Amino acid sequence: MTDDAQTPEKWPAQVAYDAESPTGILVDRIADKWTLMIHGTLEAGPMRFTDLRDALGGISPKVLTKALRALERDGLISRHAYDAQVPPRVEYALTELGGSLCAPVQELRTWAEEHIDDIRDARGRYDAG
Amino acid sequence: MTDDAQTPEKWPAQVAYDAESPTGILVDRIADKWTLMIHGTLEAGPMRFTDLRDALGGISPKVLTKALRALERDGLISRHAYDAQVPPRVEYALTELGGSLCAPVQELRTWAEEHIDDIRDARGRYDAG
Repeated sequence: MTDDAQTPEKWPAQVAYDAESPTGILVDRIADKWTLMIHGTLEAGPMRFTDLRDALGGISPKVLTKALRALERDGLISRHAYDAQVPPRVEYALTELGGSLCAPVQELRTWAEEHIDDIRDARGRYDAG
Repeated sequence: MTDDAQTPEKWPAQVAYDAESPTGILVDRIADKWTLMIHGTLEAGPMRFTDLRDALGGISPKVLTKALRALERDGLISRHAYDAQVPPRVEYALTELGGSLCAPVQELRTWAEEHIDDIRDARGRYDAG
């Protein structure tokens, strides 16, 4: 068996993916705790920074800001500032592109819900062994 | 709008999920770079530790060991030691439970492949702005 044969094409050897590739998008951006939680929270509708922060109680403003910028840069969320209001209101919302990610993420969520008992059982066996 | 109304039920306020919940499984285990890459690599078939390490060139043995143990504990992969062989051979493979995760992960991968151009365009606009 050569090294080539051992390595599935979808995960190139030597982690040769880059951040601009589909694999990079998948493992670096989507497969991220805060990406999934922010995305899941905004599914319910637009939300202000402070409300997002409160909804994601475990997040620091710095980490939230960084995650929101990454999601905005990727075109998954939009940032809208209502400057006419005092104090200025800034809202974040899923874009159309961000909305298209809801279905595949829901598939994963459904998988987790359907298999949570299997996973709990496996953990019990592993910890007992 | 009350705090309750602002917080979608699926992501409880104050990040109240625990590691044993479907949400915890999703964001703590599945939404993990190495989980997805190990899982994706083992889709091609059972593999030895050293071959996995080589396929995931960017991973340290310590991190790979930790990730494999977590996946084994969750029942997603199995570890089989062929003690009769010299040197002893240890192989890792997807379990039936692990295999059931292939389809939803593939949905995410397909989404990334279909939308990579949109994401690249968005990044270009963001960086230019």
